[in-house]
Amino acid sequence: MAHKGVLIIIGGHEDIRGKRQILQQFVDALGGEGAPVAVLAVATEHPQKAEALYREAFAPWRLELHFFSLAQRSLAWDPGTLARLKACQGFYFTGGDQLRITSLLGGTPAHQVILQRFREGAVVAGTSAGASAMSAVMIVGGKERAAPALEAIRLSPGLGFIPEAVVDQHFAQRGRMGRLLSAVAQNPALLGIGIDENTALVIRGDEGDVVGEGTVVVVDGRTLEMSNVSELGPEEPLTLWGATLHVLSAGYGFHLADRRPKEKKL
Amino acid sequence: MAHKGVLIIIGGHEDIRGKRQILQQFVDALGGEGAPVAVLAVATEHPQKAEALYREAFAPWRLELHFFSLAQRSLAWDPGTLARLKACQGFYFTGGDQLRITSLLGGTPAHQVILQRFREGAVVAGTSAGASAMSAVMIVGGKERAAPALEAIRLSPGLGFIPEAVVDQHFAQRGRMGRLLSAVAQNPALLGIGIDENTALVIRGDEGDVVGEGTVVVVDGRTLEMSNVSELGPEEPLTLWGATLHVLSAGYGFHLADRRPKEKKL
Repeated sequence: MAHKGVLIIIGGHEDIRGKRQILQQFVDALGGEGAPVAVLAVATEHPQKAEALYREAFAPWRLELHFFSLAQRSLAWDPGTLARLKACQGFYFTGGDQLRITSLLGGTPAHQVILQRFREGAVVAGTSAGASAMSAVMIVGGKERAAPALEAIRLSPGLGFIPEAVVDQHFAQRGRMGRLLSAVAQNPALLGIGIDENTALVIRGDEGDVVGEGTVVVVDGRTLEMSNVSELGPEEPLTLWGATLHVLSAGYGFHLADRRPKEKKL
Repeated sequence: MAHKGVLIIIGGHEDIRGKRQILQQFVDALGGEGAPVAVLAVATEHPQKAEALYREAFAPWRLELHFFSLAQRSLAWDPGTLARLKACQGFYFTGGDQLRITSLLGGTPAHQVILQRFREGAVVAGTSAGASAMSAVMIVGGKERAAPALEAIRLSPGLGFIPEAVVDQHFAQRGRMGRLLSAVAQNPALLGIGIDENTALVIRGDEGDVVGEGTVVVVDGRTLEMSNVSELGPEEPLTLWGATLHVLSAGYGFHLADRRPKEKKL
């Protein structure tokens, strides 16, 4: 890949009061304390709450925190905002509604600045809705705890930090295997990545490593022998044969370009 | 297989008031109306409720219904009970707690009679807890909507109508992929079968066909390249590489001995 950045995709409900293991990963990736960090509370209609939460969450480290809500698209053109974003070394997208993130930020100069900073080596993290928005194709909603079906899912273009993948979060906790399979079946060129709560996939170049207490589920649809996704009405459940499933816990990883799991880091 | 019976494994919440599609399969497998059927409300502490429910459920057909609660093991030796069971052509295990079924019925003459009737061609159905009890290895409990982990699951011997498989029910609806993967990882000789609500796998000989509104998920662990299940503490999440996943909707099926999905029946 042509970027030097680190991408940290978090399955939501990351521990922000206890061990803060995933936040520590973010700070470590920044190269330690002191770095200017943009906390992007774009996904939520209550950015003040998110600000209070993440001010407390990041309190153990000496970071230079900048909060952005970008509640109107016009703000993503503001020269002062762009200058502040350009100066940041870390970007942390909070939770809420992923469609708020893409509809407010997508295609704006602010979006371009963050992509550019990522290519230059910045650390970009997203949790929950922020995690969904990281991929080129994003799940915006759909049925949980349901069989895979077209109605079980709605897709939308994401912010594009990770291409050829679709990410789902709160994965085991909300029973989202059906909707991830629905996404992958529509185009198995997409790698399906499901991330549990308080768990993250930390991507450097082509390699992702799992941190946190749960698992990252990877669905590789290239092995699919058959799926009937193109023949179905929206409410009919899917049939698919031969998807490949990997479950990865902390320390294990995945080589994204090769689509191969990696041995545990020692 | 050496048996002539039909096994109908139902993922719970089968429609018993509307179209009754799965009950119709049961009646069809019996060869039509008039057959003596044992309804085994063994899993529940409220067998009268189950009796009222299934009396109404089967009301559209003229079946000779016999209700059994077998609330004490001694009843499974009763000559009158055994004679009534021997005369039945269908056996329908209701929901509740699968450990009640196996602890009350396991190893008794009544269990032997039903296995013998199954070998001779009887139709055996189980829904919810009754579905879990059908396999040789049964999931008795464990965490739902959780990452796969040893603590996420407890296994126990089932009634043995289907060997080398482990069945989970209410599958998508209760987010049970994690616990099915935990079961399969422990010994991939077991085929993992997860059945959604109002959905059934109808097994004749080595072939299973899906009926109903959801899907049957099949996890074939033979392709597993690696799992760390033997190295883990009970609360640590699993890593496993390369499970094969099939999702089957109504009309599709699975060849159990070959572990291959089947084309849709026309």
